[in-house]
Formats: sequence, structure tokens, C-alpha cells
Amino acid sequence: MVKKYRLGNPIETDSVVVSIQEEKSTIPYFDIVQGKNELRFDMDENDHVFGLGETVRGINKRGYIFTSKCADDPNHTEDKRSLYAAQNFFVIWGNGKGFGMYVDTPGCVSFDIGYTDTNVFFIEFEDFDANIYVIDGASILDIVKEFRGIIGKSYIPPRWAFGFGQSRWSYMNEDQVREVVDNYDKNDIPIDSVYLDIDYMERYKDFTVSDERFPDFKAFVEEMKKRNIHLVPIIDAGVKIEEGYDVYEEGVKNDYFCKKENGENLVAAVWPGKVHFPDFLNEDARKWFGDKYKVLLDYGIDGFWNDMNEPAIFYTEDHLKEVFEKIKEYEGKNLDIRSFFDMQGMVGGLANNDEDYRRFYHEYKGKRYRHDKVHNLFGYNMTRAAGEAFERLSPDKRILMFSRSSYIGMHRYGGVWCGDNKSWWSHLLLNIQQMTALNMCGFIYSGADVGGFGADVTEDLLLRWAEFGIFTPLFRNHSAEGTRRQEFYRFTDTESFRNISKLRYALIPYLYSEFMNAVDNDEMLFRPLCFDHPEDDMAYEVEDQLYVGSSIMIAPVYKQNANGRYVYLPEDMKLCRFRSYNDYDVEVLGKGHHYVKAALNEVLVFIKKGHELPLATPASRTEDIDYNNLNYERF
Amino acid sequence: MVKKYRLGNPIETDSVVVSIQEEKSTIPYFDIVQGKNELRFDMDENDHVFGLGETVRGINKRGYIFTSKCADDPNHTEDKRSLYAAQNFFVIWGNGKGFGMYVDTPGCVSFDIGYTDTNVFFIEFEDFDANIYVIDGASILDIVKEFRGIIGKSYIPPRWAFGFGQSRWSYMNEDQVREVVDNYDKNDIPIDSVYLDIDYMERYKDFTVSDERFPDFKAFVEEMKKRNIHLVPIIDAGVKIEEGYDVYEEGVKNDYFCKKENGENLVAAVWPGKVHFPDFLNEDARKWFGDKYKVLLDYGIDGFWNDMNEPAIFYTEDHLKEVFEKIKEYEGKNLDIRSFFDMQGMVGGLANNDEDYRRFYHEYKGKRYRHDKVHNLFGYNMTRAAGEAFERLSPDKRILMFSRSSYIGMHRYGGVWCGDNKSWWSHLLLNIQQMTALNMCGFIYSGADVGGFGADVTEDLLLRWAEFGIFTPLFRNHSAEGTRRQEFYRFTDTESFRNISKLRYALIPYLYSEFMNAVDNDEMLFRPLCFDHPEDDMAYEVEDQLYVGSSIMIAPVYKQNANGRYVYLPEDMKLCRFRSYNDYDVEVLGKGHHYVKAALNEVLVFIKKGHELPLATPASRTEDIDYNNLNYERF
Repeated sequence: MVKKYRLGNPIETDSVVVSIQEEKSTIPYFDIVQGKNELRFDMDENDHVFGLGETVRGINKRGYIFTSKCADDPNHTEDKRSLYAAQNFFVIWGNGKGFGMYVDTPGCVSFDIGYTDTNVFFIEFEDFDANIYVIDGASILDIVKEFRGIIGKSYIPPRWAFGFGQSRWSYMNEDQVREVVDNYDKNDIPIDSVYLDIDYMERYKDFTVSDERFPDFKAFVEEMKKRNIHLVPIIDAGVKIEEGYDVYEEGVKNDYFCKKENGENLVAAVWPGKVHFPDFLNEDARKWFGDKYKVLLDYGIDGFWNDMNEPAIFYTEDHLKEVFEKIKEYEGKNLDIRSFFDMQGMVGGLANNDEDYRRFYHEYKGKRYRHDKVHNLFGYNMTRAAGEAFERLSPDKRILMFSRSSYIGMHRYGGVWCGDNKSWWSHLLLNIQQMTALNMCGFIYSGADVGGFGADVTEDLLLRWAEFGIFTPLFRNHSAEGTRRQEFYRFTDTESFRNISKLRYALIPYLYSEFMNAVDNDEMLFRPLCFDHPEDDMAYEVEDQLYVGSSIMIAPVYKQNANGRYVYLPEDMKLCRFRSYNDYDVEVLGKGHHYVKAALNEVLVFIKKGHELPLATPASRTEDIDYNNLNYERF
Repeated sequence: MVKKYRLGNPIETDSVVVSIQEEKSTIPYFDIVQGKNELRFDMDENDHVFGLGETVRGINKRGYIFTSKCADDPNHTEDKRSLYAAQNFFVIWGNGKGFGMYVDTPGCVSFDIGYTDTNVFFIEFEDFDANIYVIDGASILDIVKEFRGIIGKSYIPPRWAFGFGQSRWSYMNEDQVREVVDNYDKNDIPIDSVYLDIDYMERYKDFTVSDERFPDFKAFVEEMKKRNIHLVPIIDAGVKIEEGYDVYEEGVKNDYFCKKENGENLVAAVWPGKVHFPDFLNEDARKWFGDKYKVLLDYGIDGFWNDMNEPAIFYTEDHLKEVFEKIKEYEGKNLDIRSFFDMQGMVGGLANNDEDYRRFYHEYKGKRYRHDKVHNLFGYNMTRAAGEAFERLSPDKRILMFSRSSYIGMHRYGGVWCGDNKSWWSHLLLNIQQMTALNMCGFIYSGADVGGFGADVTEDLLLRWAEFGIFTPLFRNHSAEGTRRQEFYRFTDTESFRNISKLRYALIPYLYSEFMNAVDNDEMLFRPLCFDHPEDDMAYEVEDQLYVGSSIMIAPVYKQNANGRYVYLPEDMKLCRFRSYNDYDVEVLGKGHHYVKAALNEVLVFIKKGHELPLATPASRTEDIDYNNLNYERF
């Protein structure tokens, strides 16, 4: 049962696709705090809070404050209040009852869930305008399903996108891409795609391909396609300012770029240097930008990732000028230390500066909005531009699309990856924990960079991360410039990487079918134990095991040097300890606590009673998986 | 059995106090890698590596690379190779045998423990000069004891330093300090000391007290002393350049400051603005600086913490000039993005810049050394300056002293705190894990900032952290300027903070006696389970439980929203679940795995068979604890 309430004058986000009549009564559960832009809910000691999509910390969100303000911040430490996403749906559940709430506002909003006051949940609005959807249901899963019912079906990628993808910032040319594919094939490690990061472009211009690095891109795409390898280029939000560059010139001519208050196009700097930002909120601009993907579709490309769309801003032209002026004032002075830090902070703070987000405007649904008021819709509408275009340009063929920034609604047009994480064990755990909240908010095709993007990976971390990553729909190994190379074939224990990767391919029939079920029926592919066992107090304590689909539970190892882990079983299950798809031992374990051994090359999968896990014979490409010859492990 | 070997021409560090004849033979276990400044040891799969003092990651150091280069870096994320300390002692143990090694060199050295190659341990030297001590023994604890035997007895603080200390950057004046004490007393939460961070000084000048903020400091110290409160001021490494300031003028006159190559005193900037660094490695300068502590001792002060002694450098005068020049080159240019990042990195990279550490020199044992060659001795010798002075100035009274930067040898003159950690759950775990390696290296009086220094704490984190912190000799709550206030009385559940703090005071007789035993007999106060149970494979897996002294084991809860945790008992034990010193339930648990409930206000203590835990009746000050009336919980 979903009810809609209104606070102030909300800006429409198009995230809800079902027409729901507005209630005249006041919002239930939460009270408006007099004199403040705040809602307040007094939590019971037993209340758990789930949801909010891609955020830091655990599955139960109690005890911290999360701010929806899409942010390009690669340091996902536990004190961060904002990551790339704004996914304002949560469920409060305790003592056998609860409710869900979707706070639909494109502006900045904070969820203070016992941070300020341990047992109080405050929702703090920058502008007190929002559509509030309150969802009642008999269980957490019911509430999630109800919510998913109003936001429209989740994006479905092509099936090959369930294969493994190798990425790097950046494979610099044809030969480097070939080398990657050759090495995977030579080592008999399955792979379906190679990602092209920003350097494939000509001077970082969207919808161009460097003819130095990829002299005959069409032929190269074709060559790869013959090997059943999909190339997945990145698309950035900023359009390079360069005379003669068609995207730039068309955008200027048609007024498709975001403007400053004085009517000039905002000049920001991102990878290409100075850029304009397409006004993705403007329907005409969105259509225009979406059609640009055709350039790459025509090369034979059938997958993309949209990046830098919070939008990330390294600096704006105006702000940089101001900073240079101020630096002059500091120079020569006997800087006191606070002034020195001001100066350092000023230079360091040029990027993604709040002030810059107040320097430009959007034309949205016939009105002009300052960017910060609709900030969280930017990445969403960039991906919507692509998704709507694909429906026109490629109606019969699914195109892979996922985005860094997101807002609920975007889940209909693409998936997400969890952005620029790090090669940290704690980020492997974060990856595990984020999947459930992403699913609640409709983002089913999702995953994090396996092995971590920033910082240097170790072999054991990469292996353990792969052992979890094989269960996420998006299974991609990606890493940053300057960090240790982390393609699976670069380490000592190639055999284990091969076995783990092949296990993924053996699991694809199960994963794809469960994925489709989650999309079609508004279910969650990844579920915390307590969602399935609301009566089991212990199930609420478990933040590192997940149900994956209807038949299995996983318990990944995410600690360095660990040779096993504790597992809680809320019901009797059959443990399969996989070393490879056809080398595993099985053991029936009873409901309760267990310490389970898991060597570095072993994956723990638990099959539910009365269920079966189909296992295909792995192939080097998803296309070659024989769906008609599956083996079943049953319990 | 300790044997000494020589690599190249080592610089003497005075960390080993026993004269050991040098072996003529080659170093055992490790091989010299031809053509490189590296030693290599091929690890067995079962080898564990322990030690290295204050570093990131777990108790078993396998799987990462750690660099001894004392660093002022407040972001102790798991990718960091260097923290504040250089403590180059480790033990390799597996299959019932092993050895210890102490790599005694003041320069930069890296311990690549399976990072580059999973099963290989490389020691990489910047300069291939070191005294290498190889320690054989029948057990890890034997080896540690042997090692501790050659480095001299660990520092012992006054007994009041086992009481609770409250700190903040900064309590700005008398009234703010009084307010803290009043609030602790009003809320009946025990406290023995209040820390004075940098703002107590007059313009951040060492050995001065601001007479605006503390108009009659002597009287104020006296007032506090009457309440049995010890004020503990900070001392920073840099001496402010200011005409008329005696420390500055004496240092210049006597050539006690570190010089550049051209013979001028190095000008660096730290909190006071421009400073010179005393050359603590110069014996005369060390004595001179040490004697300066008398200024504060004469006020009645009997405790200090030495900070910024890596040394931290915000910038050097020369480097800042160069950067301003370079910025001019960037200005006005149509900055390409890489140049922009260069510019940003240049400004951000002014602090603690490697190049700056090559810009100044020390006079050490009759020779001149460029700073980077002896970098890791700087903080050590600052604290040695104080410790040696206290022996002269206060021979009959123990003075509290601990330091941020350290090297083995410094453990004889003071303890350490684990530097500028954060209000992160992961740093509570790090605190737990660091204690054992610190103890191995002789640092027994130690602890981390309870609640975390940087970032904003939450009530539950502070409570859980206090529940562990009550076991660490240094039990101090400290937090940074700009972060949420975190004195124990500022939260909702004052009762639990009171109970936990009182439990500390009830434990002091046990902790102090076990501390003294650890010091006197070269034992470890904190021990990983496997040190006591080398034959128990499972004990090696446990990285979040510790033996504390001879009679108890603790299992802190370090996860948000957790109401219990898994515990492994290597032997039968008696669990005491403390809500307060006189409200706890007991239960005998058998050897093996257990899931143990621990509500937010409960502390898990396990008593070993045949042992007893004495519990005092808590007092508001350590001085008032009645050691003659103890209750005993026995098993």
C-alpha cells in the first residue's frame, strides 16, 4: 500500500511512473520539526533501517548520517556522508512491523539515523520540498516490492554483460586490448568484454575515437566481435570546448549546454580540459545527446559506461581565476599557518566545489533551476538520454549501460557500478553490503570494481574479491592509472583465478534467470538474511552473508590471511565448498552457528532445502554456454 | 639466542643496549638478492609474520608491504605503508618453528611480506647498511623476550597515568579545563588528567604558557592538583622563530638547530608558523632541549606528550618559494588537466615532502648526516631528550611521557599513542590489532585516541571504543578541532559511560600489576591467542581477541549495530559479561567456538582456568583506589 504526501512544492523527478493521488492528511510516522526543514521519527531500540542504496557502512544504516548529494569522491571511508548516488528509499523494521519511505526530491537531503541522537531518525532538507511516498506492507520484502512497483521495471542488459569484463584506466590502443584478450584466452580464463577508459577518445572528446590509437576502429570492433569480445567505451558528462568538434558546435548552436546566470555557457574543466555540460534535464538536449551514441553504435559497439556525471568538476574557469588572484595575495606574506592551510584548501578545494554547483542552471520541464536544486538528477538524466536513445536506435537489441552517478528512476535505463573504490579489504565488505540496498532501490544490474580501482591490490585480495564478484551481475575487474596491474593472469596462482572465473560462467544460467526474476517480479537478487527470516533475531546481526536469488546463500571471506569464517545459518543448508565448478565438497549443516573453513581458493555456497543450483559447463564466452546441459546440485 | 650481523656500514641507533659481538658468517634465513639492496626469505605457506609495531592491517602482517619511514599521515587507511613509527622487529613463525629479526637502521626500509610475490618476504633497503639481529627461540614469546632483553627495560609512567585522560584539540583556557573536570565529577565518571593541546602555549611556542588563556598557570596547576587532576601539556618538535624567545635565541646562539647544506638553519613551518628544528641527534642540543621541560615541571606539571616529531613539516621556506614561482608559470595558461593536477599536487604536496627531508642535516655522534639518512631517529631522540632530562630533573618522581613518532630504543624513555586516528570502527579494530605488535617492540605504555581523533564520532562507537580502551595502559579520549565533541558526558547514555569508565578503575590494580610484570620480565601485556597457544591452528586465525596480562582474555565488539560477536576459546574459560564493575553475569564456556551476546553497554572478559581477576571498588581518581580491598572473580 503506497501513499503519497507532499512537502512544499516538489520538483518532479520522473522517478515514480505510477500515478498516485496525493493524500490530504499529514505524513504518518514522521513528525515535522517546528521551525526546521526536518522530519523526525523516534525509533524503537529494535528498529532496523535498511536501504539508501549506494552508501558507506553496513546493511543496517542505524548510527550514521547519510546525505544525498551525488559526489565524485574516491575515498569511500566510513565517515563519508555522500557517495555517487542519491537513492532516497529506506525501510524501518522492528518488532515484526515497519514501513518504507521514499523521499523524492532532487535536492540535498540528509538522513540522520541516530547519529545526532541515538534513537531518533531525522530527515533534514535543504529545501523543504519533496514528494513523500509511505509504503506499508506485511514484511520488508513486501514493502520493497510495493516500492519497486511504483518506480518501473529495472534495466536489463544483454546476456553477454553477465560475462567477465576486464578494464583498466586505460588500455591505450588496439594492441593493448588484443594483449588482454590474448592473455585471458591463453590462460583459459573466460572473458566477454574489455572496457575502454578515457584514452580511447581523441583528446577526451565524447563520441570520438583516437585514430592514432585505434586507426581502424570499425575493423577492430569487428575483429573483437569475431572473438566474441565486446568493447565497452566510457562516455563522460563534459563536452570538450574545441572549434570544429561537432558535439561542441551543435551544443552551442542549439543552446543545449548549462548556462551561468549571465547566460554564458558554464566553462568547467574535466579530463578534456575545458568543457561545457550538456543540460541533460532539458528534453531536447537529452534527445540530442542520446542520439550521439549512434556514432559508436555504428562502429558495432553495444555497451557503454557513463562517467563523471555527478557531475565531477575539476575546476570552473571562473573559480580558478579567483583562486589565482587570491594566491597572489598570499605570496610573499609571512603566511601564518591558518592562512597557509586556507591557501592549500583553496587550491585543493577547487574540485567538486559546492559553490560551483551554484554557478549554473538547467532548463527543466519549462522552468529554470539552479543546478544545486536539481543536482541529483544530472547523472540520472545523462543515462536516461542514452537509454531513451537506445530504445529509438536499437529497439531490437539490448545495449549494456551503467552509470557512476544515479538517482532512483535511472534504474530503468541502466545499472550502476559503485564508482572509484579502492583495493581495500574493507571495500570488498562494502561491496557485499551495498548490493542489498542497491537492489532495494531498483538497481539490479550492478557491481563494484573487483580488486578495487584505486590503491595497489594484492593477489589474495583480488582472489577473495573475485570469489564474491562472480555473484554480482556486473563482474568487472578495473583499476586506476598508476596502481598495480591487476588482470587475473598477472599473478602467481593463475589456476585459482581460472577456476573462480569459470565458476562464474558455470553460474550464469542460475544468475541470469534469478536476475530476470528479480526484474520481472520486483524482487531483490541480493537479500540480507533478515529479509527472508524476519522472525529470527540472529539474522538481523548478520551483515556479511547474502541470499543470492531464490536458492542459494553466500558467505564471502573478506579478511586478509583468513582461512575460514563464521557463518550463521537461519535454516538447514547444504554447503558446497567450490574450488572449481566441478571440484567441490558438500556437507549438510544445521541451522545455527558454524565456523567454516575456506582456503584462499575456495568459495562457500549454501543451497537452501528443497532447492537446486544449476551449474553449466563453463565456456570462454557467455555465448558458448550450453544452457541445455546443466548439472544440478540439489538439497 | 641473539646473534648480530652487519650489512654495510650501519649508523648506530642506541636502540640495543647490550653489547653483542658481531658474527662473521652470513645472515641466516634471508639471502642477499644479488645486485639489489634486498634480503629475501622464502616463506612457507604456514609461516605467520608478527611485529613491526605501529602499522596498518592485521596482527599477521603477511600480504602487504610496510615501510619504516616515520610519517605524519592522519589517514590510516589500509593502503598506507608508513605511519608514525619505525619499529623494525618481527617474528616469522610456522610449523612449530621460527625466528625473530631486528633490522636496526635509521634509514628507510621496506618489509614486503608477500605483497610482490605471495610467498616471498623481501626486505628492501634505501641504504644497504644495518645491524641485523637474528633471534632464535623455542616459541614466539621466547623470541620476543630475548629481543626485549637486548633493547632495555620499557618506560614506566606514574600510576595516575593509568587513570582516564580527557583531551581535545584544544581546551582553550582555564575555564574550559575546569568545565571538563566539573562535568566528569558531576557525572561521577572517573578522570585523572586533562590534556592541553597546542593552544595552551603563547603563539605555539614550546615551554611557554599563554598568559591570556592561563593567567596564573602555576596556581591553576595547583588548583587542579588539589582535585587530583594532572594537566598534560603537548610539546612540539619545532621551535618558533621569534626574536626575544629564549628557546629560539639559545638554539641559534649555540648552533642547536638543524642546518641546511649552506650552513643556515632550516626554516620550516609548523603550528607556530616558521620554526627551526632542534637537532635532537646532537647530544648537546638534546640535553639543552631536555632541560627546557623544567619550565613546565616547575609549574607543577608531571606529564607531557611529544608531538609533530616525525618531524611533521607543513612546508619549508625554500620549497614554498619554489612553489609560488611555479604557480606563476601556470597562471593564465590554458591549463591542460595534467598540468592542473601537477599544480594542485604541488600545493597539496608541500607538507611532509620527501625532498624537504633531504634539505637539512644533523650532527650525530661526531658526524654530519643528511636528515633522510637518520629520519627515523628524530622523534625517538626528542623523547629521549625529555626522558634523559627527567632522570636528572626529577629522579624521584615518575613523569608521564609519550610520543607520536618512535623508533625502538625510545621505549625506554616514553610510551606512544597511535597518532591521529579517526572515528572509524575500522580504527577501533586497528587499535586492538596494533597493541600486540607495539608490545613486541617494547612499547608497553601505549594506546590510541579512544573515540578517534579525526572525523565525527557516534555514541555507539565511543562506547565500544571505551570498552576496549579501558584495557590499554594509556586510556585517553582525544578529538580534533572541527569534529564532534566527544567527552563521555556529552551523550545520552551517561550511565553506560560511567559504568565502563568505573570498570577501568576497578581493573587498575590488575592492569598496573600486569603492566609492571610485562616491563620487569620483558613480557607482553597484550598477546594474540596464538602466542599463548602455538599448537592451536585456530588460534592463528583470531585477530580480534587478546590476552591481557596473565589471567584474562578480551573479545571487544568493534562493529556498529552488533549485539554480540563470535569468540574462539583456545581453552575453557569463565566469561564475565560486565555491565559495571559490580553488575555482571558469569558463565563457564568450553574450548571452541561461541557466539556471545554483548549489548552496547556490556564488556566481555574471559578468565583463564586457575586464575583470578582482582576488582577494586572504583574511585574518581586512581589515587583513591583502595588496593587493600579487592574483590576477586576466580575460575
